[in-house]
Amino acid sequence: MESSAATLALPRVYPATPSAPSRNNVNYHFWPCKRRNSQPTRLHCNKMFVPGFGEASPEAKAAKNLHNFFTFVAVKIVAAQLESYNPEAYEELMEFLDRNSLNDGDKFCASMFRESSRHKNLALRIMEVRSAYCKNDFEWDNLKRLAMKMVTDSNTRLMREYVLEISHE
Amino acid sequence: MESSAATLALPRVYPATPSAPSRNNVNYHFWPCKRRNSQPTRLHCNKMFVPGFGEASPEAKAAKNLHNFFTFVAVKIVAAQLESYNPEAYEELMEFLDRNSLNDGDKFCASMFRESSRHKNLALRIMEVRSAYCKNDFEWDNLKRLAMKMVTDSNTRLMREYVLEISHE
Repeated sequence: MESSAATLALPRVYPATPSAPSRNNVNYHFWPCKRRNSQPTRLHCNKMFVPGFGEASPEAKAAKNLHNFFTFVAVKIVAAQLESYNPEAYEELMEFLDRNSLNDGDKFCASMFRESSRHKNLALRIMEVRSAYCKNDFEWDNLKRLAMKMVTDSNTRLMREYVLEISHE
Repeated sequence: MESSAATLALPRVYPATPSAPSRNNVNYHFWPCKRRNSQPTRLHCNKMFVPGFGEASPEAKAAKNLHNFFTFVAVKIVAAQLESYNPEAYEELMEFLDRNSLNDGDKFCASMFRESSRHKNLALRIMEVRSAYCKNDFEWDNLKRLAMKMVTDSNTRLMREYVLEISHE
């Protein structure tokens, strides 16, 4: 993989072998940009430059996506809770879902707030659940583990499929 | 918020106050569903039931989204690296981006692999960078912190806006 990438004569802003970063460099700080701002003379940033996010960071963009996802999950949770115990509220929620997109979680909650007094209570419940889910239930370590595994597995699979394909030609 | 939610007579499958979960319960296990499968008799799951994900978990779905996001970030990084040092490869990447969607990162890489021998090297570089970015550069703790802050801030803002709106009517 290294030799293939090298043929493109790419600038070596990052070591080509991800599994062996330069940890032996004592000046290597993992999150230096944010933690070291009180000691600017010791600032060392070995991170890859990620353009195109304006003032926001990739982390902020990913958090925004997760935020909408948590609203989606909260709606699922509340719907499941209501289905057996409060069919009337469940119907109201489903009917509202048909008319409003869940792509923007905050916009969804804001519209629900203004729909009726019953919907307001439903929106409050969804907001309460998304907060509890994000803070207590969502398995953050598992997300990290799964995402890392997914990248490794996908890279292996893509290369294997390609090699198999050209070896059968 | 608690009293408002309570008027809907929702089943109490989860404590209504997210900031004070039942930590004093010694049988409370945070990730019981996956870690305790070798000791089924000690299984206690206080988590909210999240329906609608089939066999996948919400974490797996979120990881899949992040996986595509990492491919997007890797393309941005590689493009920025190429722009000054290898304008020809940069042009090829941009031209390929115009024709192929980045929504599905793996599909994007698979197509790039088969485009030409130069594109294959580009795809290998993108796959290498997304792996390094996910494992070394992406600030996972920061993501968690930002997502939690976003939920709290959004909930406060939505309620404040609504209260201001009805108090001005």
